[in-house]
Amino acid sequence: MLLLDHAVAVVAAAIQYTRECGLPPVSVTIVDAAAYPLSFARMDGCFLGAIDVANRKARTAALFRANSDEVGANFRPGAPAFSLENTNGGLVGFGGGVVLRDANGHIVGAIGVSGATMEQDQEIAEVAARRLTTLA
Amino acid sequence: MLLLDHAVAVVAAAIQYTRECGLPPVSVTIVDAAAYPLSFARMDGCFLGAIDVANRKARTAALFRANSDEVGANFRPGAPAFSLENTNGGLVGFGGGVVLRDANGHIVGAIGVSGATMEQDQEIAEVAARRLTTLA
Amino acid sequence: MLLLDHAVAVVAAAIQYTRECGLPPVSVTIVDAAAYPLSFARMDGCFLGAIDVANRKARTAALFRANSDEVGANFRPGAPAFSLENTNGGLVGFGGGVVLRDANGHIVGAIGVSGATMEQDQEIAEVAARRLTTLA
Amino acid sequence: MLLLDHAVAVVAAAIQYTRECGLPPVSVTIVDAAAYPLSFARMDGCFLGAIDVANRKARTAALFRANSDEVGANFRPGAPAFSLENTNGGLVGFGGGVVLRDANGHIVGAIGVSGATMEQDQEIAEVAARRLTTLA
Repeated sequence: MLLLDHAVAVVAAAIQYTRECGLPPVSVTIVDAAAYPLSFARMDGCFLGAIDVANRKARTAALFRANSDEVGANFRPGAPAFSLENTNGGLVGFGGGVVLRDANGHIVGAIGVSGATMEQDQEIAEVAARRLTTLA
Repeated sequence: MLLLDHAVAVVAAAIQYTRECGLPPVSVTIVDAAAYPLSFARMDGCFLGAIDVANRKARTAALFRANSDEVGANFRPGAPAFSLENTNGGLVGFGGGVVLRDANGHIVGAIGVSGATMEQDQEIAEVAARRLTTLA
Repeated sequence: MLLLDHAVAVVAAAIQYTRECGLPPVSVTIVDAAAYPLSFARMDGCFLGAIDVANRKARTAALFRANSDEVGANFRPGAPAFSLENTNGGLVGFGGGVVLRDANGHIVGAIGVSGATMEQDQEIAEVAARRLTTLA
Repeated sequence: MLLLDHAVAVVAAAIQYTRECGLPPVSVTIVDAAAYPLSFARMDGCFLGAIDVANRKARTAALFRANSDEVGANFRPGAPAFSLENTNGGLVGFGGGVVLRDANGHIVGAIGVSGATMEQDQEIAEVAARRLTTLA
């Protein structure tokens, strides 16, 4: 079970890391284990297309209980589960969606980050996700 | 122009007022003047149906530059603009969506609140919207 | 938390009651507390339009933690929250959607029934919902 | 013509096989020959993303009267009918959707399974489909 206070702390960790590293402004979405939104923030200057990307990365990770790039490995061109991306309202299968685990390792939700490069989005999401393990 | 820091302060004002008054937990959405999400929070215990309602209230207010109940007065049953609610992906025309103005009175976005009664949602949104006029 | 075995027992109770009372064949949907499907059955001879109606009744009840007719009382023509039905992908606000509670009274999901009259759908759903309180 | 009792028996066969083999929990969808849902079950612990995948596998098989992986062979990257997957609300073209035939070999519906690996989903669906040939 993911509390709002913890979700807000995860978003704050993502924003802080983005600023400290001088990365481009991002959108950050936190969903619970059933993929329903809990917290969202779009940093000033983030391009608008990133909002939906962040939402879908978080949703993809929560629905499949795996990071978005791991889910996407199944449906990238040439992979066996092509067309999986058309399910569940449209999945996003590259980096930036990371499952959120509590201190006991249970999946309690997911974070989606978009706005920087794919590698940076993933890094921000991982850093923020680690913040939760110190809280919940 | 609505900054994330100010949007977050508006959400915090909504949550603080909800708690202080002992109202039911709500979802709060802040969008910019172009109706794109900036900040979102779902309080612990808020029913899941409130998420989309809060989003649509904020979106309705921003797109029509008027509070959601004022927009809805045009399409309530018997009103002349019935079917307006089917535009823009689906509007919500009752209380809880309020335009956000800066200190100069310019509309810079909107807030949507859902989870309590319609009147309480509206009250929370108005209180939170006033917070912005002291900031921006 | 609603187990599949219990959901199946609730569906069976709905079908048994429908048959015993000689009511028209119905579709029955069980969703969990987050409105995700757990179990579904369409009785032989049930008209096809009932499938989506049953799904939406169950979904409406789960998302708003209230029976579909109670939710719908807010948005029937002339009621203040008209246009609420356009949220959450489209709600159904008449009888036949009933929240499912465990033996402790906690809401663990919802049942939606469609295919008979509105009153019969509601009755079937209520009878089936009571079955759960003896199990979970 | 597929009866509910037979559809339920097919679902039960899928679940029994999944349990006996110690496979991950799956979602199982049975549709009739017109691709309308007849029976559905989500096993305890199945990830939520599997629901829609199971539904689409069954739907794909019923609409094209061929197993989902056979349909998908036409639209996998590089195949001539690329974009076919965008039709009919979104198809799924990998293993796990299997046509259901009665004892005379007539197609009466389809089963979709999702939640395990693609190969396991397909195996479960095939085992369950064979159950029907002993009944109908």
